[in-house]
Amino acid sequence: MTPSSPSAARFLDACFGRAVDRPPVWMMRQAGRYLPEYREVRRDVSFLHLCRSPDLAAEVSLQPFRRFQPDGVIFFSDILVPIAAMGAKVEFGDAGPHLPEPLRSASDVVRLQRFDPSEAVAFTGEILRTIAREVGGRAAVLGFCGAPWTLASYLVEGGGSRSFAVIKEMAARDPQTLERLLSLLADVAADVLSYQIASGAQAVQLFDTWAGELDAEEYRRWALPAVSRAIAGIRRGPAGAPVIVYINGCGHLVEAMAESGADVLSIDWRLPLSVARRRAPRLALQGNLDPAHLLGTPERVAQRTAAMLAETGGEAHVANLGHGILPGSRLECVTAFFDAVRAPARIGAGAIPA
Amino acid sequence: MTPSSPSAARFLDACFGRAVDRPPVWMMRQAGRYLPEYREVRRDVSFLHLCRSPDLAAEVSLQPFRRFQPDGVIFFSDILVPIAAMGAKVEFGDAGPHLPEPLRSASDVVRLQRFDPSEAVAFTGEILRTIAREVGGRAAVLGFCGAPWTLASYLVEGGGSRSFAVIKEMAARDPQTLERLLSLLADVAADVLSYQIASGAQAVQLFDTWAGELDAEEYRRWALPAVSRAIAGIRRGPAGAPVIVYINGCGHLVEAMAESGADVLSIDWRLPLSVARRRAPRLALQGNLDPAHLLGTPERVAQRTAAMLAETGGEAHVANLGHGILPGSRLECVTAFFDAVRAPARIGAGAIPA
Repeated sequence: MTPSSPSAARFLDACFGRAVDRPPVWMMRQAGRYLPEYREVRRDVSFLHLCRSPDLAAEVSLQPFRRFQPDGVIFFSDILVPIAAMGAKVEFGDAGPHLPEPLRSASDVVRLQRFDPSEAVAFTGEILRTIAREVGGRAAVLGFCGAPWTLASYLVEGGGSRSFAVIKEMAARDPQTLERLLSLLADVAADVLSYQIASGAQAVQLFDTWAGELDAEEYRRWALPAVSRAIAGIRRGPAGAPVIVYINGCGHLVEAMAESGADVLSIDWRLPLSVARRRAPRLALQGNLDPAHLLGTPERVAQRTAAMLAETGGEAHVANLGHGILPGSRLECVTAFFDAVRAPARIGAGAIPA
Repeated sequence: MTPSSPSAARFLDACFGRAVDRPPVWMMRQAGRYLPEYREVRRDVSFLHLCRSPDLAAEVSLQPFRRFQPDGVIFFSDILVPIAAMGAKVEFGDAGPHLPEPLRSASDVVRLQRFDPSEAVAFTGEILRTIAREVGGRAAVLGFCGAPWTLASYLVEGGGSRSFAVIKEMAARDPQTLERLLSLLADVAADVLSYQIASGAQAVQLFDTWAGELDAEEYRRWALPAVSRAIAGIRRGPAGAPVIVYINGCGHLVEAMAESGADVLSIDWRLPLSVARRRAPRLALQGNLDPAHLLGTPERVAQRTAAMLAETGGEAHVANLGHGILPGSRLECVTAFFDAVRAPARIGAGAIPA
């Protein structure tokens, strides 16, 4: 898994804070509905079927690679795939995922099982091996998993939530059950990510999307120990696959996130990266263009992307969006985003000699 | 409207940063479903009917006052009431408000009208006059309105949203339409709040709940000028009704919020008030207990409320939640919250002489 080409090496070097020619770049949820070729595949198959079909899932993972040549290629899947493998019922509808039997008590936790990813989700390994073969070092292959707090939120709330009232009530009134659940999910995340690394993932991202709902004290009590346990549990090989942690709305949590053991903090669009850098000076950063800009104009995307790069000077920075790309994103804006990272000289006054 | 009792005076003094015996306290959305007496009233009438019935609306506004004696009594209404008065169709369902004909173009804006609150929403004035009479200075009477960005989000998105993709796309691709809409909404908010103040409101709050989705640059471009215009437009009488501005997820916006002309910044639960104070040292603060704590235990509520008060030392601080109270909140936790603000000596080691 040693990177054999500039792109994969650039990605890994940036994650570890080593010098690079320019920041690597990819987009969260880059295999998705904004791409006509993705919608074409999805016309004939359900979301879950797509996740579980290695050839199709590898194909949609590679679609953005062929179109935009990002420096990272994430495999197509869903953060609830491991939840389903644990034995929870998961339904994917148009309004997002729904868990018809939400977890509410200790006995519900007991019914969930840790599993061997090479058996229960062998299709994910197959997708990653196919991508690694096709990409051939021209980009880093990326694995991912939901972080324990975010997976627990889905399980306990039964889907998305505005207030996270049910899991917060459990935290206050039945802490043992929530602790048991988070420990189990941390072990599952470690198992899943270790298997992904063994299957070809060169870096992995833990999505703790919803941990930003917690204040720093509650984050340190619940989400942080669980994500730290997951990271510690990853069998990090000699190549040391870097671990990226993402939280949406992480502005109040940067210092705490930095204690998770992650190599890279993935920052949402609201926190300037220069502020994140000051508060977590020893770690690489990922992010953080507001994905909504990709609904706008290429000119503005170029401008805001250049401003984002100026926040870090391009050092120890994996250029990305601050959240997943939105379905209505315009292809010319996506191109402008990649171009702005790859050819900053073309932006603004770059043609004027210094 | 000069405050004639300690409670109303305490509220206004804290808003202006004057010395108080203890911080005043109330709760956002304190007239609501967590109260059995509210559910009793709501059993027989629809939400909209309740908003428009002065006697019933005054009654539910006073319910939390009778039970908990907060220092502020906010009148019962909904932030979409002015939107409906402008001529937009608004439906209130169990899943939140829905606007079946979302605003998408300049011609949609033209169809919305500024209105005279003393005619179109005269019921709000009647509610406020009733409350002012009943409360008789034993608490400050509070008015409120949605801030322009948040009202525009409802109008353009057609209801709640996760990504705010439609309004952000409008900002990028049709800025003139959005500017016109925000100006109109700023004038409407000023009209509405001026009428509320004339009807007995002693302080008013602008809810810019969703402005936290914007990064600081976009906030300064869109939401801040509009809320500033609304505040400047309020006919602030000799008593100078203080203006409170609330944003959910305001951590990255405190400095900008402080430039709005508001007297009080209402901070969500994620940002420690000591940090907010450092970043906006000249303004009073409101907040900021995580409302989810009221689903938990009274002991923990007392502990976290004491910690919140320690963040400001009780100076220039209106104690409140960091967001609206949740429907499943426990009455014993609400009592613990009010008690912890009113009688801090009873908490922890307060009985030990200094």
